This record gives sequence, structure tokens and C-alpha cells, in this order.
Amino acid sequence: MSKRIPSKEELAEFREFHTPSCGFFFRAKKHLFSEKSVFQQIDVIDTDSFGRVLFLDGLVQTTEKDEFFYHEMLVHPAMASHPKPEEVLIIGGGDGGALKEVLRYPVKSTTMAEIDAMVIEVCEKHFPWLAPVRSDERVELTIADGSTFIQESDREYDVILIDSSDPVGPSAVLHQQEFFWRLKDHLKPAGIIAGQAGSPIYHLASLREKSLFLSQMFKFSFFYVGPVPTYPGGTWSYFFVSDEINPLQDAAKDIPRGLQYYNAEIHRAAFSLPAFLKKELG
Amino acid sequence: MSKRIPSKEELAEFREFHTPSCGFFFRAKKHLFSEKSVFQQIDVIDTDSFGRVLFLDGLVQTTEKDEFFYHEMLVHPAMASHPKPEEVLIIGGGDGGALKEVLRYPVKSTTMAEIDAMVIEVCEKHFPWLAPVRSDERVELTIADGSTFIQESDREYDVILIDSSDPVGPSAVLHQQEFFWRLKDHLKPAGIIAGQAGSPIYHLASLREKSLFLSQMFKFSFFYVGPVPTYPGGTWSYFFVSDEINPLQDAAKDIPRGLQYYNAEIHRAAFSLPAFLKKELG
Repeated sequence: MSKRIPSKEELAEFREFHTPSCGFFFRAKKHLFSEKSVFQQIDVIDTDSFGRVLFLDGLVQTTEKDEFFYHEMLVHPAMASHPKPEEVLIIGGGDGGALKEVLRYPVKSTTMAEIDAMVIEVCEKHFPWLAPVRSDERVELTIADGSTFIQESDREYDVILIDSSDPVGPSAVLHQQEFFWRLKDHLKPAGIIAGQAGSPIYHLASLREKSLFLSQMFKFSFFYVGPVPTYPGGTWSYFFVSDEINPLQDAAKDIPRGLQYYNAEIHRAAFSLPAFLKKELG
Repeated sequence: MSKRIPSKEELAEFREFHTPSCGFFFRAKKHLFSEKSVFQQIDVIDTDSFGRVLFLDGLVQTTEKDEFFYHEMLVHPAMASHPKPEEVLIIGGGDGGALKEVLRYPVKSTTMAEIDAMVIEVCEKHFPWLAPVRSDERVELTIADGSTFIQESDREYDVILIDSSDPVGPSAVLHQQEFFWRLKDHLKPAGIIAGQAGSPIYHLASLREKSLFLSQMFKFSFFYVGPVPTYPGGTWSYFFVSDEINPLQDAAKDIPRGLQYYNAEIHRAAFSLPAFLKKELG
């Protein structure tokens, strides 16, 4: 740490501001992609520390090296708690990471509704190790706003996963109660909805709001947490709601092999919330 | 995020490099202290996001806003597992945060062996809300290298806490097996040693090494984890060793009130390790 004039090297830095006065920086080896889609600014850089990094509107979405923390915790608590998850819907998730985790289960079909076709194209090119989105025969890909998609759909799902970006920009609607009523209409009786709920440090107001309406809508309504090194604060939160499945009682024993973060102990541990969060979420 | 020429404001930034190509930045409102002690460069800045921040040799040690994550998890798993922690030793911990947590228990005495008197002076001035190091009659303060101190001591302790900095610089010796043999000689029969063990992301080799020798030295040898938003990777690891106390069986019910992170659920959850860490630590 020092107070000094930045070198030329530092000018090739990419930063995410977590607040107006702090954040994370990456030194890019290469700026692989930079374009504005209809919905957002999309950037991909290559770094020594985290490999390839995807930014949407300046916020880190996924990195080559630490994507597993987020995608495993977004997907497995719900998938491993459901007795037989055959029909799965992913809202968002254009990078393919959530899909990769879902496809570890013997699902019959996984529908992905991603609003931004450019995110899918960019990730197929620059993150090819994430799910081969278009090639798995179990995958149905729709380019659509998640809220509109679910309203027009006549299908029901065992597990619905919300892999949205933050409650500003194109994902705002995916954080509102009206959207969750629509989702609930398309949930099978033992269905589960899980999704990302933001940083328990920086987005506490949004968690509180979501907690309030989800606990009114579902018999079982939980938040859980897990680390994501490159996300603000290094810890992320997720919600889990269902009218039949209690993730603390019904967690399945047959967890897919080869996971890097999630396991049966982590499943239980993740639902243990810090004192300040229990207080905030009532 | 953008690729651009830094403004004047950004020149007053303080950075911690987590690797040569990424890290955390703070914009300082004020640079409150900057001096080189006999042992290390000490800086205190004031920030909008995390309040006051203490750096030692350029690494964030503690911040006003998130110190509780680290200090609660360093102290309470050991203190709450011990049936009657009366004699406590803290090695390092000059900022006073660990001491503050220890003094929540009805201890008879707490000895603190901090190598750098300037750290104590600076923190008494700039972090006065942390433990009033010199004023509590239960506190015995020694300015000494922890390794030498324990070698020359004729006392035994119920709980020994290692609040060291990283295994480079003045704290290097506090991460070696020889030091732990010395500590073990000064541990009462039901005694516990706990301490910080670095980032499970960035310091995996150091964790592995410590795990190997600690598991040979003690009947119960555990690692546990918890978030610290301003530390590299956002998640930190700690060790817990004892010949009599198993933290998963003997955790006390009488946890001090008023904690912000730690609670009985977190105690159990923290010992649940991610798949990659279980694999690494065998």
C-alpha cells in the first residue's frame, strides 16, 4: 500500500466499486471483449489471478477461477434438496455456469430464459468450459425477459433458479414480489425456487425486503450464504423457498461428484446465519 | 469499470495487492497516521466505507466496520468451547480487538504479548473503541516477541490465541511448528490454542503445512472459516487445537451477548469446510 502516482500498467486496470470509496481492482493482461448490448455494457478481460473475468455494466459476474463458489451454491442446495428434479428453469444465467451445475443431475429438461443474447454468445466464445449452452439436448434456450417468459409459459417446474444480476438495470423486475407470484404459479407442488440475493454486507435493505415478502408467500423461506472471492464483501447470499421442501430436513444424500465447494456439511452450514443477519431478517 | 486515466482523487488511494494483479482499494478521506516502527510500516486511514483502517506493511489488519468478523471468530470458538477459561494468553493482537472479545468472559487474567509497542499506541489513539488495553485490571500487557515470551514464561494458560499477521515479516516464527511445541508446554490440560491461519484461497500452502504438524501434535485439530470482507478473498481461516476439547462436542451454551457475527449455529457451521479445502487438508 502506498500513496503514489499510478504507473502505465495501472491504467489498464479494471475496477468494481463496491461503494463510492472502495472496491476491487484487476490488472488485465488482455481486454478480450468490450461492447454494449441492447441491455448492458459487456466486458471480458484476462487476468493472471482469476483467469477470464466477465463484467456486466462494470460489475464482476463470473471469473474463470472462482465461478464454482457462486454457481455451486446457487444450484445445489435446491437441486440436492428436491427428491426428483426433472424439469428445471433458469432465469438469467447466460454465462452458462448455473446450467453446467444443473446438468450434473439426471434432469429431463432445463429451460434457460436469458434476456441478453450477446451475453450467451460472448460466454460461449470466452468461457467455453462453462455449459455448452446450445449443444446439450436437455437444454431449451429462450432469449426472453424472465418475467414475461414466465407469464406466457404454460409449464410447471420442479426447481426454478434465479441467476439474476443486481436489482438495478435489466434485472430489477426479477427482485420484486409480483415476479415471485408469477413463478409460484409455475411451480410443481414440491417445487423449489432459489436464487441469488446479493451481498449480506452491502445489500442488506434488498435482503430485508425480499425476506419479508418471501416469508409471506411460502411455507419454507430461508436465506443461506457462501463465499465468492471476487464479489463485493467476499460473501454472497441466496434465498430458498418452497411450500413442501425444508432444506434442513430434506437434503438429499446423492450429491453429484466432482464439486469444488458444495458438500453435505456445507449444505447445512450455509443456512446458519450470522448474528447481525438473523437480527436484520427477523 | 472502465479503462481510463485516474483522477487526482484516485491518487489518494490505498491498495492492498492480494496477488500481483488484483486486490482491494480504499479511497482515503484522511491519512491519520504513517510511520515506520522498528518492525513494520504502520498506516491508519479514514474511509467512508469501512471507517478507520489499520495497515501493517501495506496489509489491512483491521477496520472499524468489519473488525468484528475477524475478532469474534478468532476468539469465541475457543473461549466458548472451554468449560472455564480463566487464564488467557494473546500473542500479537496489538490493535486490542481480540482482547475486547476475551474480556466479555469472566477471565481472571489476560496476558497480551505484542511485539510492536507502536501498534498498541497507534490503536489506543485511533481505534479507542477496541479494548482499553492498559486500563482493565485483568490485562497484563507485555511488549515482547511471542516466541521468546512463551519460552521464558513459567505460566500455563487455559486458552492461547494467536492473533498474528501473515507468515512473512515479524510474525513468521508464529507460524512454525517449534513455536507450537513451546505453546503446548504452557497449556493447561484442557487448554485450547486457536489462531488465524490465513486465506483459504491465497494461502493454501501455509494452511496445508500447519494442518500437517498440528494434527500430529494434538488429539483434536481443526480448521474453521468465516468471512472478513476486507481481507483477501473475503473469507478467512482459523485453527483450533486441543488435547481434551472437541469444539464440535464441547461448545458452551453461554455465549456472551451482543455479538455481531458469532452464535451457536455459526460455531458449528464454521467447522464445515468446503470440498476443495477438505481435499487439501486431507
